[in-house]
Amino acid sequence: MGDRLAGRRVLVTEADDFMGPAVIALFTEEGAQVIPDFTDLRQPGRCEALTKEAGRIDVLVVNLSIPNPRALAHETSDKDWAAVFDKIVHPLHRLVRSVLPQMIERRSGKIVVVGSAAALRGTSNRSCYAAARGAQHAYVRCVGVEVAPHNVQVNATGQIFVENPTYFPPDYINSPELKQRLKDVPAGRLSSGREAAALLLFLASSDSDFFVGQIFPYAGGWVV
Amino acid sequence: MGDRLAGRRVLVTEADDFMGPAVIALFTEEGAQVIPDFTDLRQPGRCEALTKEAGRIDVLVVNLSIPNPRALAHETSDKDWAAVFDKIVHPLHRLVRSVLPQMIERRSGKIVVVGSAAALRGTSNRSCYAAARGAQHAYVRCVGVEVAPHNVQVNATGQIFVENPTYFPPDYINSPELKQRLKDVPAGRLSSGREAAALLLFLASSDSDFFVGQIFPYAGGWVV
Amino acid sequence: MGDRLAGRRVLVTEADDFMGPAVIALFTEEGAQVIPDFTDLRQPGRCEALTKEAGRIDVLVVNLSIPNPRALAHETSDKDWAAVFDKIVHPLHRLVRSVLPQMIERRSGKIVVVGSAAALRGTSNRSCYAAARGAQHAYVRCVGVEVAPHNVQVNATGQIFVENPTYFPPDYINSPELKQRLKDVPAGRLSSGREAAALLLFLASSDSDFFVGQIFPYAGGWVV
Amino acid sequence: MGDRLAGRRVLVTEADDFMGPAVIALFTEEGAQVIPDFTDLRQPGRCEALTKEAGRIDVLVVNLSIPNPRALAHETSDKDWAAVFDKIVHPLHRLVRSVLPQMIERRSGKIVVVGSAAALRGTSNRSCYAAARGAQHAYVRCVGVEVAPHNVQVNATGQIFVENPTYFPPDYINSPELKQRLKDVPAGRLSSGREAAALLLFLASSDSDFFVGQIFPYAGGWVV
Repeated sequence: MGDRLAGRRVLVTEADDFMGPAVIALFTEEGAQVIPDFTDLRQPGRCEALTKEAGRIDVLVVNLSIPNPRALAHETSDKDWAAVFDKIVHPLHRLVRSVLPQMIERRSGKIVVVGSAAALRGTSNRSCYAAARGAQHAYVRCVGVEVAPHNVQVNATGQIFVENPTYFPPDYINSPELKQRLKDVPAGRLSSGREAAALLLFLASSDSDFFVGQIFPYAGGWVV
Repeated sequence: MGDRLAGRRVLVTEADDFMGPAVIALFTEEGAQVIPDFTDLRQPGRCEALTKEAGRIDVLVVNLSIPNPRALAHETSDKDWAAVFDKIVHPLHRLVRSVLPQMIERRSGKIVVVGSAAALRGTSNRSCYAAARGAQHAYVRCVGVEVAPHNVQVNATGQIFVENPTYFPPDYINSPELKQRLKDVPAGRLSSGREAAALLLFLASSDSDFFVGQIFPYAGGWVV
Repeated sequence: MGDRLAGRRVLVTEADDFMGPAVIALFTEEGAQVIPDFTDLRQPGRCEALTKEAGRIDVLVVNLSIPNPRALAHETSDKDWAAVFDKIVHPLHRLVRSVLPQMIERRSGKIVVVGSAAALRGTSNRSCYAAARGAQHAYVRCVGVEVAPHNVQVNATGQIFVENPTYFPPDYINSPELKQRLKDVPAGRLSSGREAAALLLFLASSDSDFFVGQIFPYAGGWVV
Repeated sequence: MGDRLAGRRVLVTEADDFMGPAVIALFTEEGAQVIPDFTDLRQPGRCEALTKEAGRIDVLVVNLSIPNPRALAHETSDKDWAAVFDKIVHPLHRLVRSVLPQMIERRSGKIVVVGSAAALRGTSNRSCYAAARGAQHAYVRCVGVEVAPHNVQVNATGQIFVENPTYFPPDYINSPELKQRLKDVPAGRLSSGREAAALLLFLASSDSDFFVGQIFPYAGGWVV
C-alpha cells in the first residue's frame, strides 16, 4: 500500500474492460479515489454527462477498447472501420474536451491515455485498429503541448502483450498462436496487468509533471 | 524530362489541391500517364467508382487535404472533428481497399500517401488534424507490411513547410506569422512544391521497391 | 520515505556529478543501499575493480558526464573528440561488461543509463557530444535485447533541461541564454533533479521488468 | 543513363567495400565524376590529405565498414571495441571536418553517410557495432542542423539486408542463417546493392535540398 495518488480523484472509463480492472486495483491501493465508469461512451452526450457527474477529476484514464479487430485492409468494410473509430477515437476527443476546462482552470490535472503498440509497428490484419490507435497518439502529442502551459499533463502508452480481459484473455494466453507471437518478443513473456498498470500509475502521479504529450511504448521490447 | 515513370498509369486524387498540381506536373514530365481526379471522395461509393473507372492503376497517389483546420482541443466540436476524418482518413481506406485487389493480382503496384508532419510533432491548435494524419501513418505502416509479400509497396510522407495551394498559399507565404514559424525550421525556408514532389516521385518509382510501410518526414529539419 | 528499492544494492558512478546527487538522495529514501563511486573511470582497469569491490550489485546507474562540450563540427579537434568518447562512451561499455556476468548468473539485475536528449534531436554545436550520447542509446537497445532472456533489464533516459551540477548549474539557470532556450520547451521550465530522478527510480525498480533496451526521452516536450 | 549528378565531383571512401562498388557504378551512370578512395582512413592525417588531394568535392559519400563485428556485450574486449570506433566513427568526423569548410564557403555541398539499421533496432551480439553506428546517426542529426543555414545537406541511411561485399557477401546470401533472418523481414528478400544505391543517389542529388540531418531507414520493413 502506497500513497502515490493519495486524495486524487481518478476517472477510469470502461472500468470492466482492457486495463480497467488492473488500473482500478493498483490506483486504489495507492490512495486514489477511483470513479469507475461502465457506460457506453458512444452514446450522444455521454462523455459530457460523465465528466459533469464526476465533479472534480484530478486524473482521467482514457481506457477505450474494442475486441479483436483483425481484418485485411481490402476486406475491411466501412461499417467495421467506423465501429473502431466510434469506439476508440471519437470518445477520446469528447472525454478530453469535457475534462480539460476544469483542469485548465485549476492549473492541475493529468490525462493518461491507454494506447496500443499496434500504432507503432506495422503488422498484417491490423490496419484499421492501428489507424485508430495512431490517431490517439498523434492527438496526445498535440494536446500535450497545447495544455502544458496550463500545467496539465497529457501522455499515452503504446502497450501490447499485456494480460487483460479484452485482448489477452485467459484462453488466448494458452493458445499456440500466442506462443508463436511471443518468440518475436525479447522479454519472452506477457506482462501482467498489474505490471502494466505501474506505468500508468507513473503517468498519473506527480512523477510525470515534466512529460508533455509523450508516447511510452510498453511491449517487452517488441517496439521501443 | 526523364523516364522514371515511363508508361505508368498514376491516379492522383484531389488534383487541384494540396500536392496535386506539383505531382501531376513532375510525374507527367517523368513519363507517367496521369489520371487526375477532381471529385469529392466523401460521396458514398465514389472511391470505388473512381478506381473502377480508372482501369489499371500502377501508382495511386492518395492526396487528401482540408483547409486550415486549427482549433484548441477543448473547442473542437464533434462536427468539425468529423469533417476532418471524413475528408482525410476514411477516403484513404476506401481508396486503398478499392485499388489493392488489382495490384495484388498483378503482383505490382505502388501506393503513395501524402501525409503531414503534424502527425509527427506536437503543436498547439492542431490536435484534430494531427489525429487524422496520425491515423494515416499508422494505417500505412500496417498495410505496407500486409501487402509487401504481394510485391506492392505502400509508403507515406510527413510533409510541412511546402508551398501548395491548400496549406501554404501565396498570401500566407508572405505573412509575418509564417516568417516567425520558419525561425524554428533549420532549413530556414519553404520547400517548393516541385522539390517535395521529388520525394513522392521516388516513392512512386521502382526506387521504392524495398520500402515497406515507411513514413518519410519532409520538413526542412523541423522533424526528422 | 518509500520502499521501492528496499534492500537493493545500487552502484552510482560519478556520484558528485550530473545526476549523481539527486539519484543518491532519492534512491536512499526509497530504501536502497547506495554505493557511490567518485573515481575517474577512465583509468585502466578501474571499471573492473569498481564492480569487483562493490560485490553484489542489484542496480547499476551509469551516470557519466563531461562539462559543456560545445563546438562546431569543423572546429572539433581529435583531442576534444576523443575526450568525450573516453569519458562517456568507453566506460559505459566497461561498466556493463563488468557487471553483467553477476546479474546474468543471478538472473536478476537492472542497468540504468543516464543519457541525453542531445542524441535525439539535432542542434548546432553539439555534434561530438550527441555522437557519444547516440552511441550510448544504440548500445543500450542492443544489450537490452541481449540480456532480456536472462531477466536483466537495461534501459536509458534521454534527458535535457534538468537541474544538475554538470550541465545546468545555478549560474547558468539564471542566464539569458537559458531563458531563450526554454522558449522552445513546451513545459516552459527546467525539471528539478529530484523530478528527473523519479524516472530513474522507475527504471531501477521492479516497475521496469517488462522494458527491454528502451530509451525514455525526458525533456519537457523538447523531444518526445 | 541519367544526369542526376551531371558534373558533380563525388568522393567515395572505401571504394572496394560495403556500398562502394554499387555507389560508384550508379553515380557514374548518372553523370558524376567519381573520386574513389581505397586507402586506410585510420592513418593519422589521411582524411585531411584525402580531401585536400581531391580538390572540389560536391558530394562526400562516407562509406565506412568493418567486417562481421559480432560479440556478446560482456565478451567484447577493449581492443575489439576500439577497433570498431577507429574504423567507423572517428574517420566520419575527420572526413566531415575536412570537407565542410569548402562546402560552407561555396554554400553548396552534400554529405551522405552510409549508416546501418543496427543503430535503430536492438539485436543480440551487435552492441559494439550498433553503438558505433548510433554515434554516426546522432552526429549526422547535429551536423545537418548546424550546416543547413550554409546550404549544405548532411543526411544518412540506416541500411540492412542489402547485398554488399562486406556484410552480405555471396556465400552468406545462401546460408541457412540468412534464410532464417529474412523471415523477420517484411520484404522477404535482400535488396540488391543497386537498389540501395538509389536512395544514396537521391540523397546526393538536388532532390535532398530540403532534408536536414535526417536518417533514412532502408531495411525492407525490418525497421521503418
